Amino acid sequence: MFQRNMGGRRLPAVGASSEPQGGHMKRRAFLRAGLTGAGVAGIAAAPLAAPLAGATTARGLDTLFNPRRPGRDYNGPVRLSSNENPLGIAPSARQAIIDGLDEANRYPGATGELVREALVARLGVKPGQLFFGSGSTEILRIASAAWAAPGGRLIYAEPTYEDVPRYSQPFAYDHVTVPLTSDYAHDIDRMREEVAKSSAPSVIYFCNPNNPTGTLTATGPIMDWIRDEGEQHLFLVDEAYFELADDPGYETFVPLIERHPNLIVARTFSKVYAMAGIRLGYGIAHEATVQRVLPFATRNAPNHVAGVAAVASLADDEFFAKSVKTNDEAKAIMYDALAQLDIEVLPSHTNFVMHRIKGELATYNERMFEAGFNVGRPFPPMTDWSRLSMGLPSDMEKLAEVMTDFRKKDWI
Amino acid sequence: MFQRNMGGRRLPAVGASSEPQGGHMKRRAFLRAGLTGAGVAGIAAAPLAAPLAGATTARGLDTLFNPRRPGRDYNGPVRLSSNENPLGIAPSARQAIIDGLDEANRYPGATGELVREALVARLGVKPGQLFFGSGSTEILRIASAAWAAPGGRLIYAEPTYEDVPRYSQPFAYDHVTVPLTSDYAHDIDRMREEVAKSSAPSVIYFCNPNNPTGTLTATGPIMDWIRDEGEQHLFLVDEAYFELADDPGYETFVPLIERHPNLIVARTFSKVYAMAGIRLGYGIAHEATVQRVLPFATRNAPNHVAGVAAVASLADDEFFAKSVKTNDEAKAIMYDALAQLDIEVLPSHTNFVMHRIKGELATYNERMFEAGFNVGRPFPPMTDWSRLSMGLPSDMEKLAEVMTDFRKKDWI
Repeated sequence: MFQRNMGGRRLPAVGASSEPQGGHMKRRAFLRAGLTGAGVAGIAAAPLAAPLAGATTARGLDTLFNPRRPGRDYNGPVRLSSNENPLGIAPSARQAIIDGLDEANRYPGATGELVREALVARLGVKPGQLFFGSGSTEILRIASAAWAAPGGRLIYAEPTYEDVPRYSQPFAYDHVTVPLTSDYAHDIDRMREEVAKSSAPSVIYFCNPNNPTGTLTATGPIMDWIRDEGEQHLFLVDEAYFELADDPGYETFVPLIERHPNLIVARTFSKVYAMAGIRLGYGIAHEATVQRVLPFATRNAPNHVAGVAAVASLADDEFFAKSVKTNDEAKAIMYDALAQLDIEVLPSHTNFVMHRIKGELATYNERMFEAGFNVGRPFPPMTDWSRLSMGLPSDMEKLAEVMTDFRKKDWI
Repeated sequence: MFQRNMGGRRLPAVGASSEPQGGHMKRRAFLRAGLTGAGVAGIAAAPLAAPLAGATTARGLDTLFNPRRPGRDYNGPVRLSSNENPLGIAPSARQAIIDGLDEANRYPGATGELVREALVARLGVKPGQLFFGSGSTEILRIASAAWAAPGGRLIYAEPTYEDVPRYSQPFAYDHVTVPLTSDYAHDIDRMREEVAKSSAPSVIYFCNPNNPTGTLTATGPIMDWIRDEGEQHLFLVDEAYFELADDPGYETFVPLIERHPNLIVARTFSKVYAMAGIRLGYGIAHEATVQRVLPFATRNAPNHVAGVAAVASLADDEFFAKSVKTNDEAKAIMYDALAQLDIEVLPSHTNFVMHRIKGELATYNERMFEAGFNVGRPFPPMTDWSRLSMGLPSDMEKLAEVMTDFRKKDWI
């Protein structure tokens, strides 16, 4: 009944295949289409830098470029728009990736266990209190999906990071936005009032320090609230910028997970470890909560490359210190420049600062782009502010000159 | 009101921090914990190969090893259990990854657009007809989540790939399994009958070629069904092994997406392109369907490393041909060996074969493990069969010897 020598018998068939039909083809034709070569295939055969040079005319593709890279002739704007770390990944992470490429054909489960071990040692949590995602954005997605329930409210600050509202869109959440206080902190009292309006399982999202403002909310009152509140509501605390914040009123929420299964803390390797392109985030929660959310997670996270880079990065104290110091230096330069220009700025505990602008944000952004800097995007209702990610200190010095020039033109 | 020189004022605080509290700490203490060094941090500072050598005693961690790698002293079993490509990633992909590491600190949106362009040229689809995931497993997750509806049925073969049933678990699906036919094909007639029992939006999952059996279902009758069926039901067609299949009765479903918004085709770079650890899959569907499912996708896919590797791989016809040829050779060796031993085997159109065993599967797997090969796992109800992934041809020759020896012992 079964064809026992299928493999052998099929070999002579390699050359025989049908013609491509309407752009869709079987395997052999699929291969041949590559050989005869549509444009992209030919472009892609060259080293990576070459095809991308051709793509720089498209503003959307500039994300791929780090213009400070030596030997690169790219003259596009400096990317100060996505809170990326301008240093690039740690040299130790780079070497770990290269060393690990021989295993990149294998599913990454074992690599993930090494990351788990490293985080368990670093954070003092149990192995079952961690789950992984493709960036912390996936941790936010997973939580949004897992807590969705009829009548549930999603309560978050305005403005704050957009991913949780975005991911919750397909579900039956009532969205409730609560403006930041006059100090640009989360308005805990008003958020508590909103939660009290419904007993259905709600999600309360805190991004702390907050994106896009960079400001801190004192953690004590939120922790008090969590201790008081019933367990039906989820507290989703986004600590993406945790490693960059340092203030007496700021604490991580991780110690609370043991007693509060209605708490998920999200972290990322994108910021201090500069791995935004490599995608690794993790959630920290009670073991029961991890079990509850895992069915909503995508399997095989982290990817192998992210895993080996993370293990190396977590052990690389030198890079960590350099990353924090470089960011602090860049911010000091920018704060000084803004002070000299008497431009209002929020106290930042992150790798970006939010400062006032004059006139239309779109006009400001366009002028900055022409001056060589890609900054911000609109964060309603704060449309007369610009969110500015920190580049290298040398970038900030150049930007300070541009701002001084803008002032002369009355543009800022 | 605002602290204007925050960045500068914070710099002197670097040395000052509180003690770790119960394993949880602020940034500075977080750093110091690494310096004083829990075990894992110390281990991880060494090159990747070193810590992993220590991990080989744990059977679960063997996934990370490719024992055929020259100069590696690892003596664990050959991985023939997860349908991975034993060649490792394409040399062109390896180089593209290394060249692209300078941009790994940037969010990967631009890289993703390059992959999209390459696939548009290769597949003849429109840019808006593609969406990406962390492996094709995320495409299956996205579809399962997006189509969930009260009363909906999830209809799939038994046995088939487990991810769709797994991802649909949190949702209100009634799971309906339909045994494969006596030819190990999907039983289209019975699946149609099951769909007809409910008008609620159901999902019909086809893995074709099917995993774990490796067998094909003729595509014509399924296409006829899609053309007949109402649009409320989703046809989710998993073409993970598409590039390895070559049979007159087999066609891709991609040409149908234009007229059938209730169809999603899932593909992956894990198999023919050996990128299982790097995580890149894509879905192909009508533009309206892509818009419908995107809210369930994780943002920032593909990751940058997967993106540059994919662009290079799609242009690398030499690797594609080698990958297919190596797999075909390995299968020919295995089919010959199984024929000589008169062991029943299913006709495989993939990079694995399913063959009969004698006695308990657990015992067989343990004996194979001791003989140096990690094979299969249970796929109920086919528990007297073993799913065997293809390694290199040389692996298959050694495995054939082991099987001959097993026969002498009456173990197979």
